Amino acid sequence: MKRFERQRLIRFSDCDPAGIVFYPQYFVMLNGLVEDWFNDELGIGYRALLIDRRCGLPTVRLEADFTAISRMGDAVTLSLAMARLGQASLTLQLRCDGAAGEQRMAMRQVLVLTSLESHRPIAMPAHLRAALEQFGTSFA
Amino acid sequence: MKRFERQRLIRFSDCDPAGIVFYPQYFVMLNGLVEDWFNDELGIGYRALLIDRRCGLPTVRLEADFTAISRMGDAVTLSLAMARLGQASLTLQLRCDGAAGEQRMAMRQVLVLTSLESHRPIAMPAHLRAALEQFGTSFA
Amino acid sequence: MKRFERQRLIRFSDCDPAGIVFYPQYFVMLNGLVEDWFNDELGIGYRALLIDRRCGLPTVRLEADFTAISRMGDAVTLSLAMARLGQASLTLQLRCDGAAGEQRMAMRQVLVLTSLESHRPIAMPAHLRAALEQFGTSFA
Amino acid sequence: MKRFERQRLIRFSDCDPAGIVFYPQYFVMLNGLVEDWFNDELGIGYRALLIDRRCGLPTVRLEADFTAISRMGDAVTLSLAMARLGQASLTLQLRCDGAAGEQRMAMRQVLVLTSLESHRPIAMPAHLRAALEQFGTSFA
Repeated sequence: MKRFERQRLIRFSDCDPAGIVFYPQYFVMLNGLVEDWFNDELGIGYRALLIDRRCGLPTVRLEADFTAISRMGDAVTLSLAMARLGQASLTLQLRCDGAAGEQRMAMRQVLVLTSLESHRPIAMPAHLRAALEQFGTSFA
Repeated sequence: MKRFERQRLIRFSDCDPAGIVFYPQYFVMLNGLVEDWFNDELGIGYRALLIDRRCGLPTVRLEADFTAISRMGDAVTLSLAMARLGQASLTLQLRCDGAAGEQRMAMRQVLVLTSLESHRPIAMPAHLRAALEQFGTSFA
Repeated sequence: MKRFERQRLIRFSDCDPAGIVFYPQYFVMLNGLVEDWFNDELGIGYRALLIDRRCGLPTVRLEADFTAISRMGDAVTLSLAMARLGQASLTLQLRCDGAAGEQRMAMRQVLVLTSLESHRPIAMPAHLRAALEQFGTSFA
Repeated sequence: MKRFERQRLIRFSDCDPAGIVFYPQYFVMLNGLVEDWFNDELGIGYRALLIDRRCGLPTVRLEADFTAISRMGDAVTLSLAMARLGQASLTLQLRCDGAAGEQRMAMRQVLVLTSLESHRPIAMPAHLRAALEQFGTSFA
């Protein structure tokens, strides 16, 4: 199964008084990964989707395991694979791994495409569905 | 089962370009609730625990469901109950509800008490265990 | 000159790996104070202004001095006074003080009322100007 | 005068309900630029400075002008130059420019090197002073 990945430096602003990543910040980092995936891999401008088409992509469910800490200055790899494509929903498996490939955090996340007017689920536009299907059937 | 709760205004800084709470911000809000619970209900200073005793309380697992949106200006109720108390771990059920009591978001979160030197689990200090046991067997 | 003030706990999520408030977080806290000032003192709903009237209130200039650190668990007082009211702009003096009244941080901030369609300055609605003038000529 | 610069995408998580960068987020972005400057240009590990040497680099004063908005999806250039090097302090001029080179935000920031034990200013270590002097007398 194809994975989309990006390198990321753990920054001072990601860390808490314990000197390690403040866990909500993993979700901010992984939200940025999804943004990059849309822009760079799927060829669907994230801004165009939200601002021009007025589509939202809120999270409806997530399960996350935090298995090791990340510290300021660590180089981590963020990655995602598509687990399931529904009518209006998208299930992703996301990870943050350390430089030696060891898992720091992993998450299963269900996103739903919505109208920003009604905040209700809507069917995916054809170009988005086509791009997701192509990604889902590719191999790295 | 006793629940600890606090009111919270959804602020401009909690919201995203879709005009609703950016989901990682729920975890920041609920982290603040846990902090208030330690300080105000358990009588365990959160700062004293972290800075003086050098104990951390990282999240090792969470499951969250986002069932309705929250908008800037909404008054929400954040609440928590204790689901399980282990040797070094603590399982909480947390919620964010709207003004009419309708659920916006709910989470099950497993926290572990660690040493900030080793980042490994440690047994809970007696005063913390006693405070948690008392809370866990109380009724609202 | 009248000052509007609110108490605030310095939270875990406000602090950095040095164990003190990460300075951009002062601006987040003071943005919340301005929000409270609009809602609670001026009687101008901040949400109504932004969402219903599509007005923005971006910062165009600020000068800030950070004179002492704030640590997790500190109880601070955030306060503001109005220094100048222009056609489309508003100059505020804001402070964060420690529990003994000692200054932690002070800022002079110029905000401008804009249209969220054009992002250009607009004249203040009469009810906003009236509320600001009343505040500016009041005494605590 | 030499400038250090980095490209940055304005992300969903940088923006507010008005759809533009929430101004405190500029300071988070520019803090990351200073971190990169230490790591990549000065050859002074930011993590080593903070964690191993227990030095802080708090901001004591800043003046910022926000001259144009930045929107989600914008590619911006963050840059800095050194304006003054004191015994324990460092004055930087920082900017965020749009893709056409137009200024979005500019800031003058005074940082002070401190001990994380006492939070008081300390003289700069020789290797840090040497690296800063070399940068300050270089030309791009």
